Amino acid sequence: MDAEQLRENAHKMVDFIADYYKNLETFPVLSQVEPGYLSKLLPDSAPNHPESLENVLADVQSKIIPGVTHWQSPGYFAYFPSNSSTAGFLGEMLSAGFNIIGFSWVTSPAATELEVIVLDWLAKMLKLPEHLLSSGQGGGVIQGTASEAILVALLAARDKALKKVGKTSLPQLVAYASDQAHASMQKACQIAGIHPENCRLVKTDSSINYALSPNLLREAISEDIAAGLIPFFLSSTVGTTSSTAVDPLSALGKIAKDNELWFHIDAAYAGSACICPEYRQHLDGVEEADSFNMNTHKWFLTNFDCSPLWVKDRSALIQSLSTKPEYLKNRASEANMVLDFKDWQIPLGRRFRSLKLWMVLRLYGLENLQCYIRNHIKLAKQFEELVAADSRFEIVVPCVFALVCFRLLPAHNDQDFGNKLNQDLLDSVNSTGKIFISHTVLSGKYILRFVVGAPLTEENHIISAWEIFQDQATLLKSN
Amino acid sequence: MDAEQLRENAHKMVDFIADYYKNLETFPVLSQVEPGYLSKLLPDSAPNHPESLENVLADVQSKIIPGVTHWQSPGYFAYFPSNSSTAGFLGEMLSAGFNIIGFSWVTSPAATELEVIVLDWLAKMLKLPEHLLSSGQGGGVIQGTASEAILVALLAARDKALKKVGKTSLPQLVAYASDQAHASMQKACQIAGIHPENCRLVKTDSSINYALSPNLLREAISEDIAAGLIPFFLSSTVGTTSSTAVDPLSALGKIAKDNELWFHIDAAYAGSACICPEYRQHLDGVEEADSFNMNTHKWFLTNFDCSPLWVKDRSALIQSLSTKPEYLKNRASEANMVLDFKDWQIPLGRRFRSLKLWMVLRLYGLENLQCYIRNHIKLAKQFEELVAADSRFEIVVPCVFALVCFRLLPAHNDQDFGNKLNQDLLDSVNSTGKIFISHTVLSGKYILRFVVGAPLTEENHIISAWEIFQDQATLLKSN
Repeated sequence: MDAEQLRENAHKMVDFIADYYKNLETFPVLSQVEPGYLSKLLPDSAPNHPESLENVLADVQSKIIPGVTHWQSPGYFAYFPSNSSTAGFLGEMLSAGFNIIGFSWVTSPAATELEVIVLDWLAKMLKLPEHLLSSGQGGGVIQGTASEAILVALLAARDKALKKVGKTSLPQLVAYASDQAHASMQKACQIAGIHPENCRLVKTDSSINYALSPNLLREAISEDIAAGLIPFFLSSTVGTTSSTAVDPLSALGKIAKDNELWFHIDAAYAGSACICPEYRQHLDGVEEADSFNMNTHKWFLTNFDCSPLWVKDRSALIQSLSTKPEYLKNRASEANMVLDFKDWQIPLGRRFRSLKLWMVLRLYGLENLQCYIRNHIKLAKQFEELVAADSRFEIVVPCVFALVCFRLLPAHNDQDFGNKLNQDLLDSVNSTGKIFISHTVLSGKYILRFVVGAPLTEENHIISAWEIFQDQATLLKSN
Repeated sequence: MDAEQLRENAHKMVDFIADYYKNLETFPVLSQVEPGYLSKLLPDSAPNHPESLENVLADVQSKIIPGVTHWQSPGYFAYFPSNSSTAGFLGEMLSAGFNIIGFSWVTSPAATELEVIVLDWLAKMLKLPEHLLSSGQGGGVIQGTASEAILVALLAARDKALKKVGKTSLPQLVAYASDQAHASMQKACQIAGIHPENCRLVKTDSSINYALSPNLLREAISEDIAAGLIPFFLSSTVGTTSSTAVDPLSALGKIAKDNELWFHIDAAYAGSACICPEYRQHLDGVEEADSFNMNTHKWFLTNFDCSPLWVKDRSALIQSLSTKPEYLKNRASEANMVLDFKDWQIPLGRRFRSLKLWMVLRLYGLENLQCYIRNHIKLAKQFEELVAADSRFEIVVPCVFALVCFRLLPAHNDQDFGNKLNQDLLDSVNSTGKIFISHTVLSGKYILRFVVGAPLTEENHIISAWEIFQDQATLLKSN
């Protein structure tokens, strides 16, 4: 456990990981193992005596890697991406090296202060309103995930509302989002004790590209108020998980304001695109947000986890989440001279995550990051064109960012048949091991989701991927 | 962003981090910077163009490191430790290299399966009851922190209770712990919507070394039932934060059983010691636990974060925390053939954290890990003897694990004066930069906490630390 032992072994690990990246395209993207495979390969108790790193790495190669689904593979097009980059990886290394626990300022002032600075940088890149920056009453904080971001926003909103109407009114509180909102919305409600039937998911449809309708929202709020319920929270999404729909923020923000709702914006996926001037329009209306969240660990080259959240009124967050045990008291905190991020999040402990975001911003720079996003969007549009040119397929919703939603058209107009066909197509393309995609259902239709977002994906991967779809579709149709 | 660029830069980072460890003792343990120091040193926006790694590392050296409180320093004796080790560090590297998001089994089967296997290994090392292992209805899961562990346990307990008594009874639910329980207990109640006045913290005192009294607990429960309230949750601690008190698990477990309370055990700190047969007695009574938690990121050489939680009935956890959005559905999950850890935790995304715990267990082995723990406890006892031999000081509670609670005796018996004296002593030893300790308050007395637990701490550091206390005490008393 000394410095030289660390040096020697970590150099070996660097080579192991670099070799992994070198060979990445030789592995099936989606792991092809069966459930329970690993317990057959590993002993059922820990060793009494040390084993060598060579043995462990050999096991990683022969036993772990076959069970890994390779999110960094250029053939990875599923869910949303989880970007790793040299800068993000270096930041993770440095953070693991220091291994500090930055719950309070004093436990490593640099961890808190760098986080404040870097989130101000990112807020400026996104042209977020001034009141979300640290100079005012708000500020940014790195959460682990968008699920935690929406949860802490909801808790702050809940407690603010209950302060006004009395804590016995918890069963009357109603939260709103569209039926396309991420499942973390319902989970946050469940955790916070909001009754499930008061988590109001407003219906969307294809006529408005699955965005939240301000009119339907207004109606729902009116009905709830008439029924004696208390609206308190609205979450809108910029880039929904199923189809990257963009809710109309300006109109929704106005409704939130009129009804004194906490207005949360979940831009977990598409926030990254908004550093490009031509996509910034999707954030118009963010001026009314009480909280705004994006995941730099998705499509922004920052290794997981790193989910910046900005709030307009940090005191609301702190009132819901602060603890002041004696054993954590210190002069800087007592004097109110510093921020203690433990009071902005669910856990107490926190890693030095701003390092990796700082390294991403400095080692790549704004212009390269914009190019990176634009290139993926360009590749996605290219894929969309390929799909559109093949009459056997249909594009289900227009591609807004880098997700293409499409499906193979069934021979006859039976929805179950069409759904089964596309599920079979998904299984068959994923079984090739060359690409990995996922799916969703929109208006009852089973849809294939093809997301361009892995850092190593280039044009040739898009072309090959499309050939795989074509070949598998031909095979399926001929069966 | 290719493999060779990663290799080249990561090798540089390894040398940077190894050099950091080599020079660790030259830095003040507690950062001596003033609030706001970093914003004066960094620009106020991100660069447009890339900067070199050399520039960034130069900034880390000159601007970040002065703001780091060095948790890995052998002179770090504050709070509880946050162990970094070669094995833990290598595990972090590998996890960051794969950068997979293991929310469902299919997203990397190895991540879920290795976690199950490694937590079974650790459960066996701790001699946890069979029903907490994966073979039965229970099993282990890695949470980020003990705060999240107690929160998910509390949520499962809440929802189980409400299922029985009806969801309108939330305001009647009462949770119990001692007044020495970690602040995360109150925070979990606050998040879950348990009324703050129903978070019952039973008073402890020095006569029972600050452990939870079964008699007082029984009384509190009876009173609450008589008042129409509904007891539902009991958290007990093995190694409290202030003084490493150990609650009497067997007696408490019986009370929990009699009253149908969910019985949670928080062994965040002291769980590590229980891999040694001579300390395993502190877990006697764990047989009745519904959930058991320890932090391998504290004193078990596993870099932060890694907080294993075992539950007796995983379905209770899953019922509270599962989501089933269409876009995450897959054949393995639908067939109930696999575990999806997204349903055992607050966030959706999760890192491949079992890798580092697996590497710690394999690269060190059980016997070395036991030696590691025993050595720290031996050093703590040695420090305790040094303190006890100096009549100017008093030991406040006997050292059970590796925390020594002591104070400098005031010249006259005035509590405020004594507290001020010890606060000054804390400030003065921390200002030397050679050691960092923290404090607590027990029965109104301000107490110094000296925890031996950093991997690099050796006997000479203990001797030097004690000399610093003696010197600073002499200085203070002569003022």
